[in-house]
Amino acid sequence: MSGNNIFYAQSGGVTAVINASACGVIEAARAHPEFGKVYAGRNGIIGALREELIDTSLESEATIAALRHTPAGAFGSCRYKLKSVSENRAEYERLIEVFKAHDIGYFFYNGGGDSQDTAHKVSQLSQEINYPITCIGIPKTVDNDLPVTDNCPGFGSVAKYVAVSIREAGLDVASMCESSTKIFVMEVMGRHAGWIAGAAGLAAEQEGDAPHIIIFPEIPFDKDAFLAKTKVCVEKYGYCAIVVSEGAHYEDGSFLADQGTTDAFGHAQLGGVAPALANMVKEALGYKYHWAVSDYLQRAARHIASATDVEQAYAMGKAAVEFALAGKNAVMPTVVRDSSSPYQWHIGEAALADVANVEKKMPRDFITEDGFGITAAAKEYFAPLILGEDYPPYKNGLPDYARLKKQLIGKKLPAWSE
Amino acid sequence: MSGNNIFYAQSGGVTAVINASACGVIEAARAHPEFGKVYAGRNGIIGALREELIDTSLESEATIAALRHTPAGAFGSCRYKLKSVSENRAEYERLIEVFKAHDIGYFFYNGGGDSQDTAHKVSQLSQEINYPITCIGIPKTVDNDLPVTDNCPGFGSVAKYVAVSIREAGLDVASMCESSTKIFVMEVMGRHAGWIAGAAGLAAEQEGDAPHIIIFPEIPFDKDAFLAKTKVCVEKYGYCAIVVSEGAHYEDGSFLADQGTTDAFGHAQLGGVAPALANMVKEALGYKYHWAVSDYLQRAARHIASATDVEQAYAMGKAAVEFALAGKNAVMPTVVRDSSSPYQWHIGEAALADVANVEKKMPRDFITEDGFGITAAAKEYFAPLILGEDYPPYKNGLPDYARLKKQLIGKKLPAWSE
Repeated sequence: MSGNNIFYAQSGGVTAVINASACGVIEAARAHPEFGKVYAGRNGIIGALREELIDTSLESEATIAALRHTPAGAFGSCRYKLKSVSENRAEYERLIEVFKAHDIGYFFYNGGGDSQDTAHKVSQLSQEINYPITCIGIPKTVDNDLPVTDNCPGFGSVAKYVAVSIREAGLDVASMCESSTKIFVMEVMGRHAGWIAGAAGLAAEQEGDAPHIIIFPEIPFDKDAFLAKTKVCVEKYGYCAIVVSEGAHYEDGSFLADQGTTDAFGHAQLGGVAPALANMVKEALGYKYHWAVSDYLQRAARHIASATDVEQAYAMGKAAVEFALAGKNAVMPTVVRDSSSPYQWHIGEAALADVANVEKKMPRDFITEDGFGITAAAKEYFAPLILGEDYPPYKNGLPDYARLKKQLIGKKLPAWSE
Repeated sequence: MSGNNIFYAQSGGVTAVINASACGVIEAARAHPEFGKVYAGRNGIIGALREELIDTSLESEATIAALRHTPAGAFGSCRYKLKSVSENRAEYERLIEVFKAHDIGYFFYNGGGDSQDTAHKVSQLSQEINYPITCIGIPKTVDNDLPVTDNCPGFGSVAKYVAVSIREAGLDVASMCESSTKIFVMEVMGRHAGWIAGAAGLAAEQEGDAPHIIIFPEIPFDKDAFLAKTKVCVEKYGYCAIVVSEGAHYEDGSFLADQGTTDAFGHAQLGGVAPALANMVKEALGYKYHWAVSDYLQRAARHIASATDVEQAYAMGKAAVEFALAGKNAVMPTVVRDSSSPYQWHIGEAALADVANVEKKMPRDFITEDGFGITAAAKEYFAPLILGEDYPPYKNGLPDYARLKKQLIGKKLPAWSE
């Protein structure tokens, strides 16, 4: 008989709302006496391997509630993908040993495709070695690239951030373009999928609004077409605001960010794609430019989170607990869209096997024929995901984010050699 | 006798709250029948030279009110510094001709040091040629480098943006640092003065909080000391969050951003200082990094504006009208601080002659002895300026910013040859 404690871990790149999912898990588990304690992995799954388990029962109700409005991974996350069972069975066995040592019968893994794959494997192996662990995935990724679910918690908030940012920066450039900056390039996340870049397109509501050009990783970059469109925009609107995915690349697969630049010592240098693109325009057309790379700012921007996203992130965490109570295993709650306008959705369910290691890209019909914009279908999809504001509380002019004790429980096993 | 119309122009780099000053001017002028119309220069002072005057009386009360929550320059700004009177007297005379043709007796110039200099010269010349124009400066600059005034409208909001952003990104890096990113570099504006970089220091409230290192243009960059401090931070806290002014430079004046990089064609390339610094850490210490350059995003970020800043920007615009009513000339309203805690301030007055072309830098006692942080005195200065949130209204998940008609009045003069 497996224990009734829960192990929860955050995985991969964090988001503005992954802690809202943690909040959902912990609050729901506290409400159900069927569960024991919720242990959180210190720095994700690494915490389980090292037997570094944070006892969330030592955190106050107020602190747990504050997770809902706190960005990033409060317990620590990691970039650590377990190898296949055949390659490194010992890792899986160690996980299960740690779970066993601490009466953990439930494994909630809050992450993207890789994490769902891991959760799936743990589920299988635990059956095999006769300490069955209930494994539930909780979706999380700013990249919005998980299959089955309509969208991923984390995405709506970064979508809102980039749309708000390009609207604001677009107004700035429009103010300056007569005598100064005519080109503004904003680089956004998305190595393989252009969801984030696409969402920036929501900022354009009327002819001439920023962004004027969006560059997707799904569409091989056509330099001539890009420069021609940039020139038309500047001539028509006075300026051109461009949003580019970090993964933008040429037909041959080479990244725009890789401009063959070398530093003073002759080392190859990988800059951002934004400066590369801005330089390209400058050289071809001579326009003065500015560029921005938001990087972590975009995915950590809890101050401008989407209320819809926060709500869904929380709901996914809560659903994980409910799924476990209902005896489900090797599944992940999903967002199922019932209607875009008015926006209605409910919680669905996907088998981890169907989610693991599948990457969902922007459908071609979400991208305009010229490859530089989003269609009405895309706008219909994106629009509800950024709805609503969910401001954190402020103290001294700054968001008052949760500070956790993160007290580890005592170890019972020999140290793990990595 | 000069006319009773007002000419208002926005100048230089725009801010999140310069339109709040425009709102203050227009609402106050509408409340006083002593004034005729408020004309706004299309793209700043260039609009006056070209006789492109926007008739703000055609904008509804609601639209003018919405300027208070709309970032950037609603009427257009410009980077255009008039030469000295001796070098280009024709330009000044043209301005006054345009003012005369449209019964303009008041010139309100909303900008930084250069603009206050221009307003001052127009005032002098208008006396000389017997069409006296009342010239009032309205302070504006994200750089916070104007003298006399305690702070500049525009600064408080960018200060809030950078402090919020580094707090959020800091939490993100803290989540990831065990197995991934250990260094985060955020580049902020400030070529000559480190006010913006310094304000980011407000995010650090407890030992170990981000940012750990701030690099100011006031302090020549010491690479060895920087690398040593970075290493200590990573060893102590697991990561190091760095904020750097775009104007950071070595003792010899060369910019950190100028790394002697060349592109594929051998052209010298000026990247951002953030990637340069991140690369420097990587080469010396081997840590994985991320970097962000907010650029225009920071100064356009009306969505996270400081309520204090919005209020002061509006008050400065309103005060300009009141100064004009009181018969004042060649002056600029200022913020006078009475107390930091609780924060109290009132409107003061500076002669344009005292404001023009003076750059106020961070005092040395605002910077810690090691040159990489801010002191308690700096925190006391900065803290009130970011107080309060003043969220714009939202529509469809996005800030609903003003859209103006910007109808030009008929021209009466021959075209201006530039």
